[in-house]
Amino acid sequence: MNTFGRALGVTVFGQSHSRAIGCVLDGFPAGLAVDEEALGAFMARRAPGQGPWTTRRSEADAVRFLCGLNAEGRTSGAPIAFVIENTDTRRQDYTAMGKVPRPSHADLVAWRRWGDDWDRSGGGQFSGRLTAPLAAAGALCLQWLAERGVRVAAHLAEVAGVKDAPFAARMLDLETKSQLESQIATLATRDFPTLSAEAGAAMRDAIAKAAQEGDSVGGIVEALATGVPADLGDPMALGVESQLSSALFGIPAVKGVEFGAGFGAARMRGSEHNDPYTLDARMEATPEKNDAGGILGGITTGAPLVVRLAVKPTASIAMPQRSVDLEHMEEAELRVRGRHDPCIAPRAVPVAEAVLALTLMDLMLQRGAPSAR
Amino acid sequence: MNTFGRALGVTVFGQSHSRAIGCVLDGFPAGLAVDEEALGAFMARRAPGQGPWTTRRSEADAVRFLCGLNAEGRTSGAPIAFVIENTDTRRQDYTAMGKVPRPSHADLVAWRRWGDDWDRSGGGQFSGRLTAPLAAAGALCLQWLAERGVRVAAHLAEVAGVKDAPFAARMLDLETKSQLESQIATLATRDFPTLSAEAGAAMRDAIAKAAQEGDSVGGIVEALATGVPADLGDPMALGVESQLSSALFGIPAVKGVEFGAGFGAARMRGSEHNDPYTLDARMEATPEKNDAGGILGGITTGAPLVVRLAVKPTASIAMPQRSVDLEHMEEAELRVRGRHDPCIAPRAVPVAEAVLALTLMDLMLQRGAPSAR
Amino acid sequence: MNTFGRALGVTVFGQSHSRAIGCVLDGFPAGLAVDEEALGAFMARRAPGQGPWTTRRSEADAVRFLCGLNAEGRTSGAPIAFVIENTDTRRQDYTAMGKVPRPSHADLVAWRRWGDDWDRSGGGQFSGRLTAPLAAAGALCLQWLAERGVRVAAHLAEVAGVKDAPFAARMLDLETKSQLESQIATLATRDFPTLSAEAGAAMRDAIAKAAQEGDSVGGIVEALATGVPADLGDPMALGVESQLSSALFGIPAVKGVEFGAGFGAARMRGSEHNDPYTLDARMEATPEKNDAGGILGGITTGAPLVVRLAVKPTASIAMPQRSVDLEHMEEAELRVRGRHDPCIAPRAVPVAEAVLALTLMDLMLQRGAPSAR
Amino acid sequence: MNTFGRALGVTVFGQSHSRAIGCVLDGFPAGLAVDEEALGAFMARRAPGQGPWTTRRSEADAVRFLCGLNAEGRTSGAPIAFVIENTDTRRQDYTAMGKVPRPSHADLVAWRRWGDDWDRSGGGQFSGRLTAPLAAAGALCLQWLAERGVRVAAHLAEVAGVKDAPFAARMLDLETKSQLESQIATLATRDFPTLSAEAGAAMRDAIAKAAQEGDSVGGIVEALATGVPADLGDPMALGVESQLSSALFGIPAVKGVEFGAGFGAARMRGSEHNDPYTLDARMEATPEKNDAGGILGGITTGAPLVVRLAVKPTASIAMPQRSVDLEHMEEAELRVRGRHDPCIAPRAVPVAEAVLALTLMDLMLQRGAPSAR
Repeated sequence: MNTFGRALGVTVFGQSHSRAIGCVLDGFPAGLAVDEEALGAFMARRAPGQGPWTTRRSEADAVRFLCGLNAEGRTSGAPIAFVIENTDTRRQDYTAMGKVPRPSHADLVAWRRWGDDWDRSGGGQFSGRLTAPLAAAGALCLQWLAERGVRVAAHLAEVAGVKDAPFAARMLDLETKSQLESQIATLATRDFPTLSAEAGAAMRDAIAKAAQEGDSVGGIVEALATGVPADLGDPMALGVESQLSSALFGIPAVKGVEFGAGFGAARMRGSEHNDPYTLDARMEATPEKNDAGGILGGITTGAPLVVRLAVKPTASIAMPQRSVDLEHMEEAELRVRGRHDPCIAPRAVPVAEAVLALTLMDLMLQRGAPSAR
Repeated sequence: MNTFGRALGVTVFGQSHSRAIGCVLDGFPAGLAVDEEALGAFMARRAPGQGPWTTRRSEADAVRFLCGLNAEGRTSGAPIAFVIENTDTRRQDYTAMGKVPRPSHADLVAWRRWGDDWDRSGGGQFSGRLTAPLAAAGALCLQWLAERGVRVAAHLAEVAGVKDAPFAARMLDLETKSQLESQIATLATRDFPTLSAEAGAAMRDAIAKAAQEGDSVGGIVEALATGVPADLGDPMALGVESQLSSALFGIPAVKGVEFGAGFGAARMRGSEHNDPYTLDARMEATPEKNDAGGILGGITTGAPLVVRLAVKPTASIAMPQRSVDLEHMEEAELRVRGRHDPCIAPRAVPVAEAVLALTLMDLMLQRGAPSAR
Repeated sequence: MNTFGRALGVTVFGQSHSRAIGCVLDGFPAGLAVDEEALGAFMARRAPGQGPWTTRRSEADAVRFLCGLNAEGRTSGAPIAFVIENTDTRRQDYTAMGKVPRPSHADLVAWRRWGDDWDRSGGGQFSGRLTAPLAAAGALCLQWLAERGVRVAAHLAEVAGVKDAPFAARMLDLETKSQLESQIATLATRDFPTLSAEAGAAMRDAIAKAAQEGDSVGGIVEALATGVPADLGDPMALGVESQLSSALFGIPAVKGVEFGAGFGAARMRGSEHNDPYTLDARMEATPEKNDAGGILGGITTGAPLVVRLAVKPTASIAMPQRSVDLEHMEEAELRVRGRHDPCIAPRAVPVAEAVLALTLMDLMLQRGAPSAR
Repeated sequence: MNTFGRALGVTVFGQSHSRAIGCVLDGFPAGLAVDEEALGAFMARRAPGQGPWTTRRSEADAVRFLCGLNAEGRTSGAPIAFVIENTDTRRQDYTAMGKVPRPSHADLVAWRRWGDDWDRSGGGQFSGRLTAPLAAAGALCLQWLAERGVRVAAHLAEVAGVKDAPFAARMLDLETKSQLESQIATLATRDFPTLSAEAGAAMRDAIAKAAQEGDSVGGIVEALATGVPADLGDPMALGVESQLSSALFGIPAVKGVEFGAGFGAARMRGSEHNDPYTLDARMEATPEKNDAGGILGGITTGAPLVVRLAVKPTASIAMPQRSVDLEHMEEAELRVRGRHDPCIAPRAVPVAEAVLALTLMDLMLQRGAPSAR
């Protein structure tokens, strides 16, 4: 089932070319005055058509609330449902196109499960378009979290081998914290989500080059949350890493998730990786650095939560590919038509923020969220 | 709650120094004749005391079934419960030791949540000892899976920077498959779980060196399943990656999880990463290679399932570390006593196999598992 | 969260006066050709405005599918979402009305939890209007079940002390079965859902009399399913009674649920209540009678499933009632305005069928439903 | 799966003749000093062998904790697991007995599902013996609840047609409250759980008479909780009635559940059933009476929670019964041997209290339970 979350239920629905897509958000506390302008601005970051690296599908992605807000536009405690209309719902003439699964897409597994009943237009429920309701749901959570001092940000840590500067989140001294603050502020001004403008330019060049060659590239998204309360999550399979990774792997194209030092930790010694404790200004024990990524024993420490996602290269490429014609059961050459993002990672940045926000808010509500009214 | 799984419920219980630890396994189909010898052999692989890289805690880890098997020793369809006695249940004299959290352990988060009620002996419920019941539960699943042609194996892909040969699972031609078979057979003969004996020796040297220096090292575990039925898992947050990562991050010390090409995919082009389709001997469409790690759109393709785990270096090191005395609220130097594995990764290998088996069997039962009687 | 179901997820959303109400139905198998006419006919049975015993709110209750059906109108395996517009969405001028909780409504508990953020118009998410999406979701399940030989029916067993004839479901011989068939056929022709036309007339008289006196009455709904496969459900807290009662108590105004002989069983002796086994025509063991209501040990026996619901009298009555003005914290006399059903039980009949269908289909899918493709 | 509860997970395991039965209780807050004496006294109320109305199986039902308590005997925040040994684990010689399902037992459904793998001794996992761990788990919750002012009690409202006095819980004035207090105090002194000693004597006579005739009788258990915090539960399928009924129907032999006026509400008018509001001594709005049974809109009102369970007559009776020999597929006369309770209702009384306590505590923890530390 497309529902996730334990105290905050997220049920996404829709297919690429269905009448509408949307989401039910259940368990959202009452009292948030929804800022629809900020919501629109957030959706615009995920929307297609922003540059040479995105598709041209021109849909407004306007979020229409069906229920859950009261007459004053505040959340009412009831389930929130919203829809985003699919203005482009031409179901392609697939009879003509035949039945040739696109490599590294879900076509083959979908046909195996649902046969010709599968709503294959645009990839059906596997389409990246389904990240739009995820983004909108997450945008509401971001507003709720911001009122409680939790900030979420993400950037492209790497695309096509070009690396951005990392978040200044490994050390926890005041100077580094202030550097992190300005990084977050910088990101808010960027059209292309990198900390270094030069890295951003190089990434765009690499994406454009791949596109020209009928190819695509992958990337790594680094997401972070500051102001995360300590004491969220539970041991073992309900740990923060478990709950977060489960939600993050629900984003199409994500093939890896790591927290804190992540795979890098595997190459460290304990003396380097361990985060020593010190007393902070309030005379409380606090880690001095943060290779743990803000989580120990499955529970948040209060340090920034740091997670990185591996995003695979777009599977839809213009170059001819080998596949199989499932109707005639013979090998076939496939040329994927239509315009596709040559790199999905830039648009995955706000989606990663959204899913991080959804899970963080869920984790806070699981702990009873005294400030959630 | 310490329960995971959707059709096969796994409830682990116990603390490091409690009377016993154990597991309830719910939803296990009737009819498996449990091979207790094979179970014991599997447990021995996880057990401490095997070499210079493991602790000396000498416990038999004998699995005692409380219920769920019938008089003939076959699973009966009822919940299976078993215990492993903790023969070493001395609760340390912590009054003397004081209250100084070990860096990168769960001590601080546990004290924050439970205060002095926390059963801190040996790390309480955060102890690596809790992987013993996980291993035993997984061992039963491995037997059930083997009867259905599913094989699970894992090795140390990397320790302290020393790399093992990878599983031959990227290509899917007959020759590579046969090579993979012999790799799996080889692993079964190894005391130390590497494909390359030389790599294994080098890893052990590196571990011994770190131990001599009072330090520890991390590693990467690569796990794999062959014979996995196609069509397991569901789209989005119930995808195979989501369900598996959620369970795998429940293993203490795991900080990263990647499938197929994983983070490497982020550095590939689509033309390299995409897995073309071809017709197999039975004239069915099948991927030619497997950078997807056996999963597309959250659903298994039938190709080997490949996953890698980043295991952080053991947090308990002999070297002095900076921490805070929570009783007197002053900074303190901590020297962790007792013997601890200088590298936890070797013992994480069977645990990874176990958790992979638990989740694969759960996924099969979720799909109705017609062969599950 | 408003989601229930284990293999078939039902997420209802909406408030009485929100823009729309609706449902997401997740896990519905592919291949059902939705009969929209039959769906409309079913919705009409629940719709208001059919007689003196229902409200006059004139809404079409037309079900608009947003996604989940393919171009041919068949279910596609993807989540199904549909909405029902609320054409009457005037939010009442509650400033004028004040804040006086209606006795035996959810007003007081809602104000306690959500304060003035609660969307109180028409009772918000507690409104009986929310049973419309439940009914629509159940109507789809009824179509799927009918294709598999499962039939669901319900009638008013009792209203205002007037008793209808019971379903002929206690004995399981062929004659009684044929009598039950004709009862089900008769019900399909009734405007008012009773087996006995005379009982129906007497109930309507009693309802009309209560309405004239500004009062309301309660009733008992008896629901039944035939053709239920044996072997659905699990022991203890996942038994069929547990899963069904949990869903049925989600229908507003239901205060009791009993299966088979139910509370009557408490007054029987074992020799009377026990259902002896006999061999049926196919030489299989089968119960001879059905005081168990089709369920033993939480698992279906294959006999008709029989359940009865106690429906309390409509809380909104015209007579003056004692309450408290929460703004001025003083006792107040309340006169509930607007038209309300003087008896909710008749409209609860199709809702009970719908919820029974939802849960039965869920139980079938939990068992893997081989016929679900 | 045998796990229920949302914030407090209850996983029961064991079969009638397995080595042990037990329970894992997950999510139990730290800090409760477990009173093992009170636990033993509670278990004694459910234990067999107390009088002519119970079986003679002489097992101590001693609860042995495996983990979850700290060195001081307080709950530690970790999962609690305990076992009760089955001292009588002779597996009957069923080869001799043949395979004849007992009417109105789970035998037939168990054989259908699990075939000869089913651990049929004593009814396997369907045995009433499995209520012992439920009782023990509930006893811990009762202690936790008592520290927070919540008291739970139950009595036999009816057995074999003999009625006990009802709980004084319909009116909420001070006099009635004080009457209820003394009822609860009286119950604590009773060997046989009725409010009226005369009714108790008459019930025992009726039970003894049925037993002499080789027959059994059913009964109704009325359970109640006072001091229940307002604002527990959620609308629709997560309402208090839904969560409670789901758990209560998990008790073997329960065939009906009703809250407050229950089925009686179906025969009332709204003017009689509605609970008017008044101002209490603290000048807060409160219902004047309690036909709602403490729940409106699925949420607790703060009034006593009242629920009644229909318990069917014991299925195992000495009289000969018609059944089918499944080995030879021929009709057979069955005489159930061994001693069985001629009425299970008296022992269901503490079990009902236990399950009510488990669910109430779960509901409190779902709301964040600020007083749960």
